[in-house]
Amino acid sequence: MALERPRIAIIGTGALGGYYGARMVQAGYDVHFLLRSDYAAVKAQGMRVQSLDGDFSLQPEQLHVYDDVRSMPRADLVLITLKATANDALDQLIPPLLKHDTVLLTMQNGLGNEALLAAKFGKQRVMGGLAFVCINRLGPGLIHHMDHGMVQIGEFEGPPRERTREISRIFSASKVHCQVLQSLLYGRWLKLVWNIPFNGLGAVLDLTTDRLIDNEPGIRLVSELMGEVIAVGMAQGLQFPADLIEQQIERTRSMGAYRSSMQVDRQEGRPLEVEAILQRPLETARSLGISTPRLSNLCDMACVVDRSARK
Amino acid sequence: MALERPRIAIIGTGALGGYYGARMVQAGYDVHFLLRSDYAAVKAQGMRVQSLDGDFSLQPEQLHVYDDVRSMPRADLVLITLKATANDALDQLIPPLLKHDTVLLTMQNGLGNEALLAAKFGKQRVMGGLAFVCINRLGPGLIHHMDHGMVQIGEFEGPPRERTREISRIFSASKVHCQVLQSLLYGRWLKLVWNIPFNGLGAVLDLTTDRLIDNEPGIRLVSELMGEVIAVGMAQGLQFPADLIEQQIERTRSMGAYRSSMQVDRQEGRPLEVEAILQRPLETARSLGISTPRLSNLCDMACVVDRSARK
Repeated sequence: MALERPRIAIIGTGALGGYYGARMVQAGYDVHFLLRSDYAAVKAQGMRVQSLDGDFSLQPEQLHVYDDVRSMPRADLVLITLKATANDALDQLIPPLLKHDTVLLTMQNGLGNEALLAAKFGKQRVMGGLAFVCINRLGPGLIHHMDHGMVQIGEFEGPPRERTREISRIFSASKVHCQVLQSLLYGRWLKLVWNIPFNGLGAVLDLTTDRLIDNEPGIRLVSELMGEVIAVGMAQGLQFPADLIEQQIERTRSMGAYRSSMQVDRQEGRPLEVEAILQRPLETARSLGISTPRLSNLCDMACVVDRSARK
Repeated sequence: MALERPRIAIIGTGALGGYYGARMVQAGYDVHFLLRSDYAAVKAQGMRVQSLDGDFSLQPEQLHVYDDVRSMPRADLVLITLKATANDALDQLIPPLLKHDTVLLTMQNGLGNEALLAAKFGKQRVMGGLAFVCINRLGPGLIHHMDHGMVQIGEFEGPPRERTREISRIFSASKVHCQVLQSLLYGRWLKLVWNIPFNGLGAVLDLTTDRLIDNEPGIRLVSELMGEVIAVGMAQGLQFPADLIEQQIERTRSMGAYRSSMQVDRQEGRPLEVEAILQRPLETARSLGISTPRLSNLCDMACVVDRSARK
C-alpha cells in the first residue's frame, strides 16, 4: 500500500461508509465513493453529516463519486462497507480496484466476510474492521452520527503489521478513534456478544435497544444470549472479561433508544444480515459441540422475519 | 338457569362478544350487551356484521346496550368475552348480574379464567368456552367474521349437564356450530397447541399466521412449540391425535394471512394476554417438571414486547 497519499475507495456508501469516508475527505485524504441509489443526489448536493463531534458538509466539488466501479481509479485501500447481504456483488466490485498491494478492509458485520475476500482475492490483502458507532442514514447523502464512533482494525492473518498501524493513523487523522487489534478473531467475537442479542432481538421483536433492557425478562434474554456467544468464543480459546455481560448492558444503556442496523433493515424492508451475524456463529457453535439453544431459536426467528419483511 | 327465554348478558363487546351476541339477537334471544368505548356509536347506529355466513345489521332499537353494568338486568347466562388482561374488572362487573343460578361462561383465551371465576363467584356457576373463529373488530359496532366460528363449551368441574346442552342449543340456534366438551381441560390444552405458537410468535415477531408457516425455520419454530405444549398436556394425562401438529398447521394454512388476536393487540398498543396464553401454561410445565425451553423463551419475549408496545 502506498503510504504517501494513499488512494482510498469506499465500496458501499451507506451510513457507515458515508460517515468514515466523509471524515477522511474532511481530513484531506483522496477518497473515492461508490454509490448506488444515492448517486444522483450526492453528485448534485454533496454530503451532510450531523455529528455529536460537530456537523459538517462536503460540497459536490469536494467529492469523487461514482455509480460504476469501472470508472473508478485503482486504490491502495478499499473500505468495504456494503451490507454482508450484498456480498454476491464483490466479484464485480473489487477486481477493477486492485493493484498488486491493494488492501481490502472489510468493515462489515458478523463472521465470514474476511474469509470470503481471502478466498476470492488472496488472503495477504485482507483486513477486518469493527465499527462501534451509532449512526443512521437519514436520506441521500445525509448521515446522522449519534454516538460513539471508535474503529478497531486487525489483520485477517497474523499480528498487526506496519500497514495496520498506517491505516489506523488514517482513521485517527480523520477524527475517528482507532485501535489496532492483536487478534481480529477476538474482536469479531467480542462484537458478536453485543450484535447477536441487540441486532437479533432488535430485528425479530422490532424493538429499540433500550426496550430490550428496561425490564427483567428482556435483560434475561439478552444476558442468556450473550452467555451462549461467550461460551462459543471461549471454546475457541478466547478470553473475555468476567463482567462482560454487565459491561455491555451498561454501555448499551448509554445509547438510549437506538435502532440496531438489523432493526432498521427490517423496518425498511431490506434483507437482514442473518447469515453473517447469526447463522455463521451458530455454525461455529455446532462445529465445536457447544449448545446454544437461544441462538438457534433466535436464528430461526430472524430467518422467518427476513423472508417475510422484505419488500 | 331459566330454560325458557334465558336472559343473556355479554360482558365485553369486542369482536368475539359482539359477533356471538349479535348472532343470538338475530335468532331472537334476549341479549344485553355491556360496552365501553363503543357504547355511544352502537347505541346510535347499531351493529353490523360482515360474515362469510351472510352479512347482517342490527338496528339500535333491536339492541339492549349499556355502558354501566349497574343498569343491566340480572341474567341467566353471562358470556364473558373480555380480554383476560381486564380480569381485574370482574369484581365490579359480575355481582350486579347474578341470580342464585346464573351461569358464568368464560370465552376467554388461555388458562386460569375459570378458576378465577370459581374462586370469586362459586365453582358451580362456572363454564368455559373455546371459540374457533377468525374475527376482527373493524370499528365501533363493525365486526368482520372471516372464517370458522365453531364454539366448544364444557363444565369447569365434571362432565356435561343439562345446562351444558341447553347452552349448546342456544349457540346452534344462533347459527354458531357448538360442541359440548367432555373435558374442558382437554379442550383448553388442545387450543393452546394452536394459540401458543400462533398468538405468541405472531405477536413477538409481528407476523400474520401465513408468514409463520410458509418457510422451513418458521414451521420448525411452530412445530417445536406445539411439541412442548403437547408434552405438558400429556403429563396431565391428556391424549392428543398423533398427527396433531401437521393437522394444526394445515388448518392454519386455510386461514390465509390471519392476524392473531395477540398480534392485533400488539399493533393496537393494547396489553397482551401473556399471562393466560403463555405464562400459566409455562407455570404448569414447571410444576410438572416438563422442560419447555422454547415456551420459556417465547414467554420472555412476549413480556418484553408487552411492556414496550403499550400505548
